[in-house]
Parts: sequence; structure tokens; C-alpha cells
Amino acid sequence: MKLLRIGQPGAEKPALLDEDNVLRDLSGIIDDVAGKALSPDTLSKIAALDPARLPALPEGQRIGPCVGKVGKFICVGLNFADHARETGKEPPAEPILFMKATSAIVGPNDDVEIPKGSNKADWEVELGVVIGSRAKYVSEDRAMDHVAGFCLVNDVSERSFQSERGGQWTKGKSHDTFGPIGPWLVTTDAVSDPQNLSMWLDVDGVRRQTGNTKTMIFGVRHLVSYISQFMTLEPGDIIATGTPPGVGMGMKPEPVFLRPGQVITLGIEQLGSQRQHTIEARS
Amino acid sequence: MKLLRIGQPGAEKPALLDEDNVLRDLSGIIDDVAGKALSPDTLSKIAALDPARLPALPEGQRIGPCVGKVGKFICVGLNFADHARETGKEPPAEPILFMKATSAIVGPNDDVEIPKGSNKADWEVELGVVIGSRAKYVSEDRAMDHVAGFCLVNDVSERSFQSERGGQWTKGKSHDTFGPIGPWLVTTDAVSDPQNLSMWLDVDGVRRQTGNTKTMIFGVRHLVSYISQFMTLEPGDIIATGTPPGVGMGMKPEPVFLRPGQVITLGIEQLGSQRQHTIEARS
Repeated sequence: MKLLRIGQPGAEKPALLDEDNVLRDLSGIIDDVAGKALSPDTLSKIAALDPARLPALPEGQRIGPCVGKVGKFICVGLNFADHARETGKEPPAEPILFMKATSAIVGPNDDVEIPKGSNKADWEVELGVVIGSRAKYVSEDRAMDHVAGFCLVNDVSERSFQSERGGQWTKGKSHDTFGPIGPWLVTTDAVSDPQNLSMWLDVDGVRRQTGNTKTMIFGVRHLVSYISQFMTLEPGDIIATGTPPGVGMGMKPEPVFLRPGQVITLGIEQLGSQRQHTIEARS
Repeated sequence: MKLLRIGQPGAEKPALLDEDNVLRDLSGIIDDVAGKALSPDTLSKIAALDPARLPALPEGQRIGPCVGKVGKFICVGLNFADHARETGKEPPAEPILFMKATSAIVGPNDDVEIPKGSNKADWEVELGVVIGSRAKYVSEDRAMDHVAGFCLVNDVSERSFQSERGGQWTKGKSHDTFGPIGPWLVTTDAVSDPQNLSMWLDVDGVRRQTGNTKTMIFGVRHLVSYISQFMTLEPGDIIATGTPPGVGMGMKPEPVFLRPGQVITLGIEQLGSQRQHTIEARS
């Protein structure tokens, strides 16, 4: 099942993309693709509906972030062995966690701002895990019980803010628009194998990232269990699980970074694609 | 003005503590001490009310976190020169930022959990800054226009999770109950000088931290302006501005850490006090 949110920022309606690619209005069923609506019970109820009986929505409207009211946007660093190598670092012994500000979240095709003073804005295609039910101290065996589904994430990053401005990575990960998510929340039953999905990212039509979730160091089950030892995962929380090789700072012979006026396109098999224009930061 | 939230977790009512220390029910005026209710306009409207005409609330109910629906819980590291010294680190050249999970937020007198596997749980009394209106690229001169008020924060931390488990600090800062806030959101007009407030923290009646916000390296105005260069601050976001000397990991001759069965009390001049029992983590 593909769930999404359609409409202007802050006024998105919940919707479902049916098997004929018709957008169906879910606002008579759930308030939002958010929080408790992501529970196994509610998702089962939606799955049991006949989509043809839901109102069709017109095409061409803005697609919003695929999950609303995200409480935590947790990211995993250096989680692909080959990406760790391109940054010149050893693969981590256990997952590296950091947070992205939830105010960075935007729709999949919204503009991406290049912050004032930025000279190292970079891209990262990532598999996002959407939590469906509360998870604290869960085992790997039970981890998937707490996952509602998956989505595409661009973990946009400013490397100088991230690593040259005193300590923690949050500073380079949190600018407005640095977290496009969607187009869809694809429920777990509709993803064949989350550890075997191809990933790609282009800038101005040039292929920059190519990868597959099968080369993750720590897989989804492990990550959900692991994170739940340190903080409680709640419905609507998102985990961005790390990026494959090909980020701008790893380019040879020299790094390549984003500037206003470019187009980023990216996708993950079964999870759809995104397209962002880069612009100067708004105030 | 002292605003607070009264009632069971998730069902708190907005309230005001009037000048006679009577709790007044604000639920006829605002939905919650959260989001848009923190705007200068709404705070002015509340300030203009005659508290005696608001219903009195019975005493003895639980005090919840003083702000609801917190979007971001941003913390500043090593922001007191003498605390930086006790950790063996140089004072930072610019603010160190990290995030605490918003799921860590609890009321000021709720139990504090010691996580499973924890052997370095620690305390940090801090001045919390509560954002009242959206702030992006704001100058120091205008920074205070975006602040609704101040509150007491205990930035509970697990030092081994923070520093010995791979990289970023979030892991040691985010366990459930690691963010008691309150008892009150004290509006800016009711705080004489945020850069001259004494601070203290006791564990089992032994004074551990003594300090004053006047020894902060980066003051509130600078922090709000600085953070707004990296991410947009939104109403209800909280900035924990760093802790004075006396944390457990800095104790001589050897570090002292928390274990279940202890009592932490802490306070900041004009902002009230907190009292937490430490317990074993719940699942």
C-alpha cells in the first residue's frame, strides 16, 4: 500500500495511490498519515477498504512529506561500508546515531535551500524506516512489528557546518528543506525485501550515487532494535538508515557540492523518486 | 507570568500560577501551553486577564512538562567555561549543538529512569529557553523577540552512551525521562536578567552543582541568533543552554554517577525547582 499526503504545506490531506495509480482521498478514514494512523490496526483497516469506493483526487497537486507530525528524525551515519571508505573513515563498530531537526522535513519535490554561507552542500539518498508503534527495548526478532513501512529520504547535508563548526553533526543536517521524504510511505507488506533495494541519485542528470540496501553494515531490524535501547521509538518517527557511495564530498579528483539552480533527482526501487531544485535560502 | 501544565501524562491542562500561588485553569483560553499559544500576542492576552476570574484548580495534581508538543529539544554543550574545564576540554570557539529526543521530556517531578546497561548516568541543571515565534537568520538584537520565556531543565545524560558508543552525543541524551522541564514556563517579562540567575543541584541532599548563568560562554541572545543560522526555531522549541560545574563525571577524586533509588533536586533562581526519584528503566 502506498500512502501519501497531498496539498499545500501544513494543509496536506491523507491519500492512497491505488493499483491503477489513481489518488484516493483518505480524509474520511484517517486525519493524517501520522501518529496512531500508522498502527498495525489502522493500516489493516485501510488495506481492507475497496479503493474504488474512496473519492478520487485530482492529479497535479503538490505532494507533501509522506508522514506528518514526525516526532524524531533519527539518522544513522556511515552505514554503508563503501561510503565509510569514501569519507576516509573506518566502518563503525556499532551504529552512529544523530538527529536531524524535524523542521527540515519537506515534500519530495519541494525546493532545497542552500543555506547562507554554505560552500559544501551535499546529497545523500537513503532508505527511511517509518515507525508504526511504540518500540522500547525491542529485540531484532520483534523489530519489524514496530515498522509501518519505508520511504525515500534525501539526507541533505552541509559538510562544513557538519564537521568544521564545532563538534556534533546536527548543525549540518538541520537546515529547512534538508529532509525531503516521500513521495510515498510504502507499507512493509508491499516491499519485497528492504535489504535488497537499488538506490540512485543524479545531480543535473549526472549519476552520482548508485547503491543497494544490501550493502548496509547494520540492517533495518538491527537498527530498530539498537536505537530502541537508547530512546523510545514512537509512531511517525523516521530512521534514515545511511547512504551508499557517491556523495559530493567523496568525488574524485575533488569534491563536488551543490549550488543554487541545480536539480537533484533520486530514487529507491519500489519507493518512488524525488526531484528537487536547489535555491538560495529564504529567510 | 508563570505558565504550567497540570494533570496526567498526555492529558495535561494549561494553567497559570497567580501571584497568590493559586493555580488557575487556562483551558478556556488556550488549548495547551504549546505552539501558537506561546506567541507574543497570545501571551499578552493571557497577561491582560484578571487571574481571579479564572477557575481555581485543586492543588496536589501532577505537574507536567511546562511546554507541550515540543518540536525540537536543542542542547548546547560545554557552555560554561568552568564546566568545560572539569570535563578536561577546551572552551569551544563557537556553540556546540546537539539534540535530545523529544520523547525524553517529562514533568519536573516525574521519576528519572536509569537505562539498562547504564553505569554512568549523570545530571545537568540547565536554563531552558522556550521559543515563542519562528526564528530564522535572526540577529542578536532581535533574538529576544522570539523567546517566550525560560524554564528549568535537567539534561540527564548517560556518559558511556554519550561518549563510548560511537560518535555522536544523542545516544546518551535521549532515554525516556532524560528531559524533565518545568515546573513553569516563566515569561521573559517576569525574569529579571536571564544572564544572572543562580543554579544548584543536589543528589540525595548533597550539593553537587552550584553556578550562575552569568558564567555562560555564549549567552541566550547569541545562542538564539546562532542556532537560527543552522535551523529554523519554531514556537515550543526548547534550547537547553548548558550546565555549570559539578556534574558526576567531573567529581574528584573519582566520578560519581546515579543509580536507582536516589533523589535529585535542582533549581534556578526565579524558575522554581524540581525533584526526581531515580528508578530502573521500564520497558
